[in-house]
Amino acid sequence: MKKIQVELGNRSYPIYIGSNLLSQADLYTRHIKAKQVVVVTNITIAPLYLDKILKNLAGFHVETAILPDGEQFKTLEYVERIFDKLLTCRFSRNATLIALGGGVIGDMGGFAAACYQRGIAFMQIPTTLLAQVDSSVGGKTGVNHPLGKNMIGAFYQPQCVIADADVLDTLDDRQLSAGLAEVIKYGLIRDIEFFEWLENNISALLARDKEALAFAIERSCLNKAGIVSEDETESGVRSTLNLGHTFGHAIETGSGYGTYLHGEAVAIGTCQAADLSRRKGWLNDADVERIIALFQKCNLPTYPPEQIDSDRFLELMAVDKKNVSGQIRLILLTKIGVATLPIDVDRTLLIQTLNTYGRK
Amino acid sequence: MKKIQVELGNRSYPIYIGSNLLSQADLYTRHIKAKQVVVVTNITIAPLYLDKILKNLAGFHVETAILPDGEQFKTLEYVERIFDKLLTCRFSRNATLIALGGGVIGDMGGFAAACYQRGIAFMQIPTTLLAQVDSSVGGKTGVNHPLGKNMIGAFYQPQCVIADADVLDTLDDRQLSAGLAEVIKYGLIRDIEFFEWLENNISALLARDKEALAFAIERSCLNKAGIVSEDETESGVRSTLNLGHTFGHAIETGSGYGTYLHGEAVAIGTCQAADLSRRKGWLNDADVERIIALFQKCNLPTYPPEQIDSDRFLELMAVDKKNVSGQIRLILLTKIGVATLPIDVDRTLLIQTLNTYGRK
Repeated sequence: MKKIQVELGNRSYPIYIGSNLLSQADLYTRHIKAKQVVVVTNITIAPLYLDKILKNLAGFHVETAILPDGEQFKTLEYVERIFDKLLTCRFSRNATLIALGGGVIGDMGGFAAACYQRGIAFMQIPTTLLAQVDSSVGGKTGVNHPLGKNMIGAFYQPQCVIADADVLDTLDDRQLSAGLAEVIKYGLIRDIEFFEWLENNISALLARDKEALAFAIERSCLNKAGIVSEDETESGVRSTLNLGHTFGHAIETGSGYGTYLHGEAVAIGTCQAADLSRRKGWLNDADVERIIALFQKCNLPTYPPEQIDSDRFLELMAVDKKNVSGQIRLILLTKIGVATLPIDVDRTLLIQTLNTYGRK
Repeated sequence: MKKIQVELGNRSYPIYIGSNLLSQADLYTRHIKAKQVVVVTNITIAPLYLDKILKNLAGFHVETAILPDGEQFKTLEYVERIFDKLLTCRFSRNATLIALGGGVIGDMGGFAAACYQRGIAFMQIPTTLLAQVDSSVGGKTGVNHPLGKNMIGAFYQPQCVIADADVLDTLDDRQLSAGLAEVIKYGLIRDIEFFEWLENNISALLARDKEALAFAIERSCLNKAGIVSEDETESGVRSTLNLGHTFGHAIETGSGYGTYLHGEAVAIGTCQAADLSRRKGWLNDADVERIIALFQKCNLPTYPPEQIDSDRFLELMAVDKKNVSGQIRLILLTKIGVATLPIDVDRTLLIQTLNTYGRK
């Protein structure tokens, strides 16, 4: 087992990475401070891993909140169901919430923990590659609004993250690929060596080679932990993690939550950001092709859906959190391995990308 | 104008107390960092003070969210209306939210600010005595749940609080009295000198003597700021501010939000806590009479509603945030001017208080 520490002063916490972690009771119990525990999960994950978790929690008063599966349920309405459960069971502010699932469950569970009685302890047990390498680390929690993704939320850090590579065995291929989109992101924004490693090892990852997966998770978490420790609330370098996300969120919102997986939308958005970086003169044609090729090797979509035209993109991108006073701001690449901070984008170039990249 | 600083490291902020503050534009604008401003208020306050506020915000892009008036609307549903407004107007995370109203508006506006895009700046302009002396200071924000008061929320500090004593001119007598309940609380828990001053000056306060009111607001805010600086997230001394509140919340929830004003329920609850403190042997009969007499001079209710019997009280008190693993914990008085931290309460004594204090 590897342990990576996210350094955040009195809010620091460990990420445990390895195999067969779910059955190690002490990993859980050392982070639970009172008897009351609620496990938040969804209908897909519950039959696979819930029993395994509950077995480790003998002696605790454990309740479960099982939500439907999908980004379209990442709403305040479903977070309220978690509150209902906690209040019906009269859970106190010493209770601990365990979020067992992918990014949606982690974001909703974390937000419920942040708000219940103004904050209870929580623990992340991510069950998708995407959640293990990205969303479970760093304390971003929240839900979507019909007008924008992740618009309602809180920065709220967990007590620990348990990333067990074994759970990826039950992950379907589409979800695995979606996770790789965020893995590739770390290479693109700050780790050229990792990007090159990914180019050489993508087949091993897709074949679920355990060693390759464990390395990719660890390297991704090291990158993420480093960034988060430096800038917890995204006033600077943390925003580079949003490469491709402004385009991606527009794709997710514009095509209806649940149509694209988050990682799929990010893959497309990253290619759009690469195209725009080329138009800025920072990447050359070969760089852009190289980026697109890696996503395509992962069986990820790389072109935006036809039904979202450039006007609709601009409208959707206008509500992004990085924007300031109506100006669209984006993360771009000055080269492979180096991202910019959010920059005001020349609208003409942006419209060129929206109208021509991946369009017939 | 007086200025009291709430010391919380990089989250410190000033409380401005005085007359004619609402028309001093620079008090507002010095705390607003970008063009976008949303004023959250209610239908009672808007006709009285909204124009005065807007006049100071020429040059800003100002939107308003006007909610219905009353504790029964302090719900997630109405906070969502604030989010809808912010998103429809495409407000960014540099926007500032101004909460203009009593405790309900302050709590909801603060919670909306805490959650919108994971946190935007906000400013409190309390328009009731209760909000000026208590709820607008200290960063407790949130909403009620049908199963318990203030169960969903966040600790989130404002940029500043502007307490203008002039707005109390339009406050009705019932609201003024309700505010005095929280003023008396500071005397009871930590400031015997202030308690005695209140006994001698209660008529002046009820007659809205400006000088007396200004002194009471300032002394209350000094007490509150001192406590909050010492214990922001209520792990210790801050919980003494909840004297009477566990009973009070049970009264509010049990009789339907909006039946009793918060301060009225707290007045009753504080008398119940005093009765229980007497049963513990800490207060004598004369102390309890003295406390009840002061609330009664303020025209506040001091006996619990008949329809909430002791079983229902116990059920409602079981969801209080101070409880640990099912045990009801309360703040009591060891003498007038000195409160305990939350203590496990002897159930027999508690039931005696519930069954006999103020019962026929």
